[in-house]
Amino acid sequence: MPKLKRKKIDIKKVKMGKNVTIYSPSNIYECEIGDNSFIGPFVEIQKGVKIGKNCKVQSHTFICELVKIKNNVFVGHGVMFINDKFRNYGPSNRNKKLWSKTEVGNQVSIGSNSTILPVKICDNVVIGAGSVVTKDINTKGVYAGNPAKKIK
Amino acid sequence: MPKLKRKKIDIKKVKMGKNVTIYSPSNIYECEIGDNSFIGPFVEIQKGVKIGKNCKVQSHTFICELVKIKNNVFVGHGVMFINDKFRNYGPSNRNKKLWSKTEVGNQVSIGSNSTILPVKICDNVVIGAGSVVTKDINTKGVYAGNPAKKIK
Amino acid sequence: MPKLKRKKIDIKKVKMGKNVTIYSPSNIYECEIGDNSFIGPFVEIQKGVKIGKNCKVQSHTFICELVKIKNNVFVGHGVMFINDKFRNYGPSNRNKKLWSKTEVGNQVSIGSNSTILPVKICDNVVIGAGSVVTKDINTKGVYAGNPAKKIK
Repeated sequence: MPKLKRKKIDIKKVKMGKNVTIYSPSNIYECEIGDNSFIGPFVEIQKGVKIGKNCKVQSHTFICELVKIKNNVFVGHGVMFINDKFRNYGPSNRNKKLWSKTEVGNQVSIGSNSTILPVKICDNVVIGAGSVVTKDINTKGVYAGNPAKKIK
Repeated sequence: MPKLKRKKIDIKKVKMGKNVTIYSPSNIYECEIGDNSFIGPFVEIQKGVKIGKNCKVQSHTFICELVKIKNNVFVGHGVMFINDKFRNYGPSNRNKKLWSKTEVGNQVSIGSNSTILPVKICDNVVIGAGSVVTKDINTKGVYAGNPAKKIK
Repeated sequence: MPKLKRKKIDIKKVKMGKNVTIYSPSNIYECEIGDNSFIGPFVEIQKGVKIGKNCKVQSHTFICELVKIKNNVFVGHGVMFINDKFRNYGPSNRNKKLWSKTEVGNQVSIGSNSTILPVKICDNVVIGAGSVVTKDINTKGVYAGNPAKKIK
């Protein structure tokens, strides 16, 4: 039988601020995490991601390339970020010209099991648990649903 | 560069009944799990949680503090429980007065990828996969959708 | 206190094609994975599953028994497949006569955090992120929502 290529997760080449806590097992590489931020277990954070100060990223969450998160942001459990919108009706297969970026403002709270398409989210936004955010959010408030809409 | 605080998951201080099975890796601590219950891999169960007899908690699921689950309950894969409703438009930052509790009755089955806000769910309820349960469920039946509604 | 039965995840008895990559930790057993396919970390793939050539299965995904996936298929992060529709208003408790199968065609792309009930999905389909697929998909196109509907 052909030989399996095994790869292992790791926490490596992370540019860290002071007092950063990370649970293992997690797969976190070539990204930045600011002062006092906390990362739970079973998390993957890909290269180039920037996470600000005083943030919490809870268990089972995936943060892909091209995501920037400002300060005092809470990312719940099982939240999935996305950079590939399948623009050509399928995965872009590492053609990064087809990827899109996500920016999450300050004091944003993202409920567990939410899905975040590549969007801009302004400061002071709450995303309800289980939401699917498909469009930019430019006004502070509470958003929920699939697709997420302003509810408060 | 500042030093990373690394923490590791563990299965510890669990008050167990007879014939309990737990897969590793999982992060399960200071909780109770009843006779004949099964916990899959990549699961986190926080302190104070009570899980009854003959329950199954499947892979990738997160059960937070303040959740009580009775007997013969099935919790699917990737189910996220929540205790913090962001009442003050953001995380309560360990101020547990702002948290809310969840009670799951006997013979409840929760489909995979569901999200369970802090609610009471009565006995003999089925929650369809991918549901977001935002309100108490007081009548037996089948519930599904985002937000979950009675469908049968 | 009664003794805990601990079980460990493993990658074992996988019938592999050439150039298959699998990240650890994952729980993958008694299944088939075709040439050039890639499996991310925190993944569970159960026995009897068949995955074709040139497929990607991303992190945090669960693929249950009775799922067959053809070639050039992309399965995003946190996708949950299901074989038990709770037909008798609860889990079938290993009575596999009550389970149903899933078939995923060629060139299908399934967005992250989607939930896939037991269905047939034809070739050349895109499933938007966060979707819940409850019915067979027999026409190529883009589907999204809970429940998933054709949007393009």
